[in-house]
Amino acid sequence: MRLEEMNWMDVEAYLKHDDRILLIIGACEQHGYLSLLTDSKVPQALADAASQQTGVLVAPALNFGVSPYFLRYPGTISLRTSTFIAVVEDMVRSLYGYGFRRMLLLNGHGGNHAAQSRLTELANELPGLKAAWYQWWNATSVTEVAMQHGLRSYHAAWIENFPFTRVTELPESEKQPPQFKGILNAEEARQTYGDGVFGGPYQVDGAVMDEVFMAALKDVLFELEF
Amino acid sequence: MRLEEMNWMDVEAYLKHDDRILLIIGACEQHGYLSLLTDSKVPQALADAASQQTGVLVAPALNFGVSPYFLRYPGTISLRTSTFIAVVEDMVRSLYGYGFRRMLLLNGHGGNHAAQSRLTELANELPGLKAAWYQWWNATSVTEVAMQHGLRSYHAAWIENFPFTRVTELPESEKQPPQFKGILNAEEARQTYGDGVFGGPYQVDGAVMDEVFMAALKDVLFELEF
Amino acid sequence: MRLEEMNWMDVEAYLKHDDRILLIIGACEQHGYLSLLTDSKVPQALADAASQQTGVLVAPALNFGVSPYFLRYPGTISLRTSTFIAVVEDMVRSLYGYGFRRMLLLNGHGGNHAAQSRLTELANELPGLKAAWYQWWNATSVTEVAMQHGLRSYHAAWIENFPFTRVTELPESEKQPPQFKGILNAEEARQTYGDGVFGGPYQVDGAVMDEVFMAALKDVLFELEF
Amino acid sequence: MRLEEMNWMDVEAYLKHDDRILLIIGACEQHGYLSLLTDSKVPQALADAASQQTGVLVAPALNFGVSPYFLRYPGTISLRTSTFIAVVEDMVRSLYGYGFRRMLLLNGHGGNHAAQSRLTELANELPGLKAAWYQWWNATSVTEVAMQHGLRSYHAAWIENFPFTRVTELPESEKQPPQFKGILNAEEARQTYGDGVFGGPYQVDGAVMDEVFMAALKDVLFELEF
Amino acid sequence: MRLEEMNWMDVEAYLKHDDRILLIIGACEQHGYLSLLTDSKVPQALADAASQQTGVLVAPALNFGVSPYFLRYPGTISLRTSTFIAVVEDMVRSLYGYGFRRMLLLNGHGGNHAAQSRLTELANELPGLKAAWYQWWNATSVTEVAMQHGLRSYHAAWIENFPFTRVTELPESEKQPPQFKGILNAEEARQTYGDGVFGGPYQVDGAVMDEVFMAALKDVLFELEF
Amino acid sequence: MRLEEMNWMDVEAYLKHDDRILLIIGACEQHGYLSLLTDSKVPQALADAASQQTGVLVAPALNFGVSPYFLRYPGTISLRTSTFIAVVEDMVRSLYGYGFRRMLLLNGHGGNHAAQSRLTELANELPGLKAAWYQWWNATSVTEVAMQHGLRSYHAAWIENFPFTRVTELPESEKQPPQFKGILNAEEARQTYGDGVFGGPYQVDGAVMDEVFMAALKDVLFELEF
Repeated sequence: MRLEEMNWMDVEAYLKHDDRILLIIGACEQHGYLSLLTDSKVPQALADAASQQTGVLVAPALNFGVSPYFLRYPGTISLRTSTFIAVVEDMVRSLYGYGFRRMLLLNGHGGNHAAQSRLTELANELPGLKAAWYQWWNATSVTEVAMQHGLRSYHAAWIENFPFTRVTELPESEKQPPQFKGILNAEEARQTYGDGVFGGPYQVDGAVMDEVFMAALKDVLFELEF
Repeated sequence: MRLEEMNWMDVEAYLKHDDRILLIIGACEQHGYLSLLTDSKVPQALADAASQQTGVLVAPALNFGVSPYFLRYPGTISLRTSTFIAVVEDMVRSLYGYGFRRMLLLNGHGGNHAAQSRLTELANELPGLKAAWYQWWNATSVTEVAMQHGLRSYHAAWIENFPFTRVTELPESEKQPPQFKGILNAEEARQTYGDGVFGGPYQVDGAVMDEVFMAALKDVLFELEF
Repeated sequence: MRLEEMNWMDVEAYLKHDDRILLIIGACEQHGYLSLLTDSKVPQALADAASQQTGVLVAPALNFGVSPYFLRYPGTISLRTSTFIAVVEDMVRSLYGYGFRRMLLLNGHGGNHAAQSRLTELANELPGLKAAWYQWWNATSVTEVAMQHGLRSYHAAWIENFPFTRVTELPESEKQPPQFKGILNAEEARQTYGDGVFGGPYQVDGAVMDEVFMAALKDVLFELEF
Repeated sequence: MRLEEMNWMDVEAYLKHDDRILLIIGACEQHGYLSLLTDSKVPQALADAASQQTGVLVAPALNFGVSPYFLRYPGTISLRTSTFIAVVEDMVRSLYGYGFRRMLLLNGHGGNHAAQSRLTELANELPGLKAAWYQWWNATSVTEVAMQHGLRSYHAAWIENFPFTRVTELPESEKQPPQFKGILNAEEARQTYGDGVFGGPYQVDGAVMDEVFMAALKDVLFELEF
Repeated sequence: MRLEEMNWMDVEAYLKHDDRILLIIGACEQHGYLSLLTDSKVPQALADAASQQTGVLVAPALNFGVSPYFLRYPGTISLRTSTFIAVVEDMVRSLYGYGFRRMLLLNGHGGNHAAQSRLTELANELPGLKAAWYQWWNATSVTEVAMQHGLRSYHAAWIENFPFTRVTELPESEKQPPQFKGILNAEEARQTYGDGVFGGPYQVDGAVMDEVFMAALKDVLFELEF
Repeated sequence: MRLEEMNWMDVEAYLKHDDRILLIIGACEQHGYLSLLTDSKVPQALADAASQQTGVLVAPALNFGVSPYFLRYPGTISLRTSTFIAVVEDMVRSLYGYGFRRMLLLNGHGGNHAAQSRLTELANELPGLKAAWYQWWNATSVTEVAMQHGLRSYHAAWIENFPFTRVTELPESEKQPPQFKGILNAEEARQTYGDGVFGGPYQVDGAVMDEVFMAALKDVLFELEF
């Protein structure tokens, strides 16, 4: 159940029997032909599904992540690294104050990794806090599904192309991943990636996507047992 | 239209004929019997309605605001003042980079006022930026609607009780606003406010709520002509 | 009594029988024809008068506030929002350390509002701290005085024109408040406001000013009973 | 002339013929038997005297400095090092914006030294800025006066005992400077220094104080020729 | 050549024909039986070797990284995430100011990843900056060497056991990697890891280590061609 | 002994009988003809010598300090004041966590003074922490050695010219210290100082340097008894 469907009294009642919560750490950034909010939508869908099976609460999505390399693709909204880790810290501290102790952060975006070290710093400071960080797209289970179908994962390609992230028609073709060296700035990233997709097929059979989603969901359910 | 329903190419196309965008500055905090996300939901609803009439884009909601006084009401997620103004700054800077010049920030929460001075600092720095800050609940137009019905606005009371913020049944009674002096900390706020409502009737006739919403929407449409 | 007229031994003696202190939260910014330090001088005068009647100590004025919109009016000295809230925090923490528990912050400047949420955050952290924030110019009591004389309050107009804030002759005329939309940057503010006064008569009868001052002083004395 | 005696129009007129300004970087901290505001009052007196002779403007005093070692002496108000350098930065940037280019910072407190490196960083960033930092109490000229009278300077002792910093009677005796090793925290500083004076005679003949003041004033006048 | 063996005139001369520099991003943290400075020593050795072959300059090592999980292992010195990214930023900005444009950051420690997003932010701001980030221990080339010998990489195990990181005798045995869920705090990390090694054999044949080093060095030389 | 020659078990063993540690607070900045790392090398040499006699541990050098005035001399790497004090804080906090209580910071660079006030703030916060700050070049003992030989100390001149800081031949001549007023920015500093030396002879007899070193070492050994 999402916090938005509840009032504070509901949360107080929940805390009498459970201390777990799911956090959505998303991003608003270019995903080629897909929704700008893909990185919030996927972990949100996983959280909703896991919540339905377990009853664990789902906090409102943090819709912005760290995406400085995409700041030439209109619509990307990037938090500075320092801002981002402060937001995650404030979310965790607020929830810890009510008695939430096991927090599973479902991260949707690779650029958000800096929050992990801040989480460890918080775990040093807040007794009893158990935080976990799950990234669906490069989880072992998901990688195995991809490999079984002879596929590799790339940003904004088939792996993120779910019915709920699609906002338009997609090319049928497959993209050759561009080659480059070093860290690209936003200008160079746009020149390098063109439509914003990093490589591979733009879409695959829906059954594969179901397998991917179910593999990630199984992980989330497993992670929730901590 | 919401950014989440678009990809970056759609935004690039939009920017060729318009440079306006609506930002939702919300909060996740106790609202008595109403949804914890009330302060995101109301400006979101206003933004969606205004967008439908004008075609102006709507950025994803910032779901967290500054609510330190409610940190004893489970479910409230409060950003530090310093974190919050950094987030708003990063949102504005990202969008400015693509050519957005007129940004209307629809604020849903009183505690978020600190962002206003930061917006002025940004307006000094970013040539051509026109930012506007609109708070629906204490706008002159909304206050007039309330007065016409002999009502006053209070946090989490009738004025925020829309069909889309309601998550449970509400009391039929009217609450006497509590008296106190000085700044309440979270502990004192909970003792003072009990169920979290600041006073007044918990609900009024749906027709009044429609009037309130239409008055605010009219304001938003007026503000968008800047 | 002001801290500047005392040494630390005097303060230590005071703390044996009282734990209240008055803080002056001012600003150095354009006030049309009036002193650049108007926003420090008014709360200072109120604090001195209240101190004389109650013996409550008065801390040295913070002479700088948040005034980014006036940074094209020479003489305005504006702290960034983040700097300003850090200063207020440090003042409160220092005084709390000696046993001061009831702190009344007399704010002279509208742009300083961001400190209020930081004060709540501090009140959550520092047990027993009672902080109060008083703004004289838009207090109910002062507004009533104005209304009785058919007057409205505007920045740098009659309402701030005390004998002790006057540094030159003032126009006899009345100014039409300018109309504008959105947040003005410093350049636009100067173009919009010209001499820096927001509207209304530049001066009124001294008897009215005495009424205003006495109304605010009465408020301060009332607030000190917390 | 002090900014508080002027309005913005006066400052604008001044800038047509001069671009110098005097800043008072003070402190509110224990000074033994002397005023808690000694470190603001001395540079203020020097600035006022220099202003009278040269017409250079004087900005409002920053009444708070970095005094963590005195946080067990009631009345000391200490800014964190990071806060303090941010305040000085904001003061300098605001004034630079109007065309002030030569800024003489009269520092009254040893703990404020951290601002100097920030001033150099600002001088790298703001073309044409000429900042100077003057500390009267350990200036060569003042040290020479002291030596001529067989005196050494100590915090809160004779060297800071001017008619305008005195708030009570002082001991006639001379204090033996305490011995210690390493950095004292606030608790240890109070145990070590007792009445807060670092050593030497508490007071000397008024003629010596006049010599000290005139030596420092001469320095300030010299520094203003930059 | 290392900067420490040069004076500024040497650097000025170098910049006339090259704009590359190698930065050592290290850490001071527990490495089981190995040196606390292992994460500085390995990239330093790689940098020195690469410098000898190419003449590219080597900046002094940043000896501290982000290691909050090891703060119960005496000797670990951990920078907060925010401090760490500020240091890397200041290093890059200083060097950029002289004309260095191609900077290869040799990172020795997994916890330092947060700097990468800050580097992208800097690349957006500083025209012509080409930064690259190389982590030797999980580079494809090094992983291949490990796999050829049937080995996997673990913190503080054989992979970091070079002659120049060894400070004592090591166990001959092989360690079973411990199992756990979620983010460990420092207390839990010590309980989980015991001697601090994450798993695998403590040491392997010196010839394998030479292969590892040569593979990484080859990478560094390749990266330097950017 | 240096931490780099130890593993964490060695440090744990050390802490059973001693709680002292030596920290090297250095800089990477122009020193005329001398090594860019002179300000790290001198305190490192002192620390190593003191460690050999006392067995007190030596932490890895912080190789970067606050040197904004030298940012036009290639090779200088300057941390912002705010970054620098954060690093020193993190070093102290990490070591305090293991039981280190007496920390002697050997500072090699004048621009690093801002850390001292932060150390006092930390000493207020961390019970039992005894920090000391030693600057060799302007210590009374070293000044006396210089005076006995009719010498004065200047940046990058004879006083810093040790066998281990020399990287090239030096002029035989003596430099006249340049005159200037106010705070120099990096551009002005380079124009003013030319080769980067502040004045005096570039080199003196090695026997004098031995005397200087021994005087400083005696100080360090004395400071370690705290």
